Amino acid sequence: MLYLIGLGLSDETDITVKGLAIVKKASRVYLEAYTSILLVDKSILEQYYGREVILADREMVESASDDILHDAQNVDVAFLVVGDPFGATTHTDLVLRARSLNIPISTIPNASIMSAIGATGLQLYNFGQTVSMVFFTDSWKPASFYDRIRENRAIGLHTLVLLDIKVKEQSLENMARGRKVYEEPRYMTVGQCAGQMLEIEEVKRGEGQDQAGVYTEESLAVGVARVGGRTEKFVSGTLKQLCNADEELGGPLHSLVLLGRRTHELESDYVREFAVDKEGWDRIWKRDYAGQQ
Amino acid sequence: MLYLIGLGLSDETDITVKGLAIVKKASRVYLEAYTSILLVDKSILEQYYGREVILADREMVESASDDILHDAQNVDVAFLVVGDPFGATTHTDLVLRARSLNIPISTIPNASIMSAIGATGLQLYNFGQTVSMVFFTDSWKPASFYDRIRENRAIGLHTLVLLDIKVKEQSLENMARGRKVYEEPRYMTVGQCAGQMLEIEEVKRGEGQDQAGVYTEESLAVGVARVGGRTEKFVSGTLKQLCNADEELGGPLHSLVLLGRRTHELESDYVREFAVDKEGWDRIWKRDYAGQQ
Repeated sequence: MLYLIGLGLSDETDITVKGLAIVKKASRVYLEAYTSILLVDKSILEQYYGREVILADREMVESASDDILHDAQNVDVAFLVVGDPFGATTHTDLVLRARSLNIPISTIPNASIMSAIGATGLQLYNFGQTVSMVFFTDSWKPASFYDRIRENRAIGLHTLVLLDIKVKEQSLENMARGRKVYEEPRYMTVGQCAGQMLEIEEVKRGEGQDQAGVYTEESLAVGVARVGGRTEKFVSGTLKQLCNADEELGGPLHSLVLLGRRTHELESDYVREFAVDKEGWDRIWKRDYAGQQ
Repeated sequence: MLYLIGLGLSDETDITVKGLAIVKKASRVYLEAYTSILLVDKSILEQYYGREVILADREMVESASDDILHDAQNVDVAFLVVGDPFGATTHTDLVLRARSLNIPISTIPNASIMSAIGATGLQLYNFGQTVSMVFFTDSWKPASFYDRIRENRAIGLHTLVLLDIKVKEQSLENMARGRKVYEEPRYMTVGQCAGQMLEIEEVKRGEGQDQAGVYTEESLAVGVARVGGRTEKFVSGTLKQLCNADEELGGPLHSLVLLGRRTHELESDYVREFAVDKEGWDRIWKRDYAGQQ
């Protein structure tokens, strides 16, 4: 059996009782650690489970999935995924491959950022499609998120923005030379995300007014850090204010929610509590959001 | 401290290790059991936790929340919620009340149907806003879901439809007479949901063509039952086919996903596996969905 087991969002004790029992008795245990991370290291997990955990990087999951699935017709293989196994990243490829090998599959769900984001007090019913933000480079600033946010905002919905993480990445030079030397891991912050959002708004404005104006420096948003963890932190404010909220938010992982105009008053009351500047929040809320359902 | 603890979706072992430790040592343990249910009874939970669990009905949570919060400045109170504490139903009222009483709050996230629905193989990124479907009566057929599905479909997104449950409901007669006699619990099925969706489409068609046509009898959808449980079941097909899939799906809880035209081929491949009629699925997929991104 191939077990896809969600680990939740924070530490080793966020696994479910059901999931832990499977990990303890499986023949092999893999940890997918390139699309998200827990706030604890692999060694902590190994100690907690009392057994070895094999790190599965992107290469292994995408190109060497048969190693992971080896003999899973006969023995139990546990594939651990931070969050929910079918959360932000789905492992449909791996499951389709397992299916084609007649390997039975079982999923143990867990918390995902896609639902845990409800801890902001914003109603999950009022979220539109989720978007991803990648690290911009000088020559690569993909802006497809902008049109998706436009679609969400046109119908008044919130947008969850998931932020890029870079683990086990090679520099272009090392890649060109075939050197398996990896860069330090990088985790995008709320400040970087808000900055990139405003940068693209600026670009769109330059391209012509009718394509721009999806949001402004004064659009309200919530920055979140380490959701579901003991040190969970929320900071709300305008996109401009959130450009400078990284220190208050602290370490990774960060996400951001851009508010839609269909925001309910109870949602605003709840989120206002985390505002950088409560008076400013109230002024903008009253001007741009209240009663706009 | 007030602990809001998610129980996950299926049975007593879906609680997280962290959540279970808190339940075992809290002074009082409440179970919110009117917006969703686990697939096991309260008595199983009590046996598993080794302690009493107090059932919190809607009345208690909405009108007598101070009983729940009593002395939580000094002792630990655990409030258990099926799924994630901030999932389909948010308990913002309870949390705002706790805040006003200076009670510290901690949330233990868990799987929610809002993310576990990814187990269908449909990408969570491609979902729009979630809608709810209530039981229609002869005189009350609320159709606000229809406009929200229209918004999702206009931009090509999937829609998760959460289905009504009725627990501890009084008949109109018993309510009028003030008799605290409750009806048998009822859980909406995928068949009932698909039937009501097609009924409203019919009504809209009668009201004028420009308001209608959000979906048809041949729109593709996935019916799901007991997601995350050992007996999890998926059936895919047209809305018309799903009207008759209840037997195959089995007992509660059910949900339904209406596909958006932005469906990726890999998503279709995955979901097709559960199709009532694979050839019919392929024909409609090719005609109405493939390459419509």
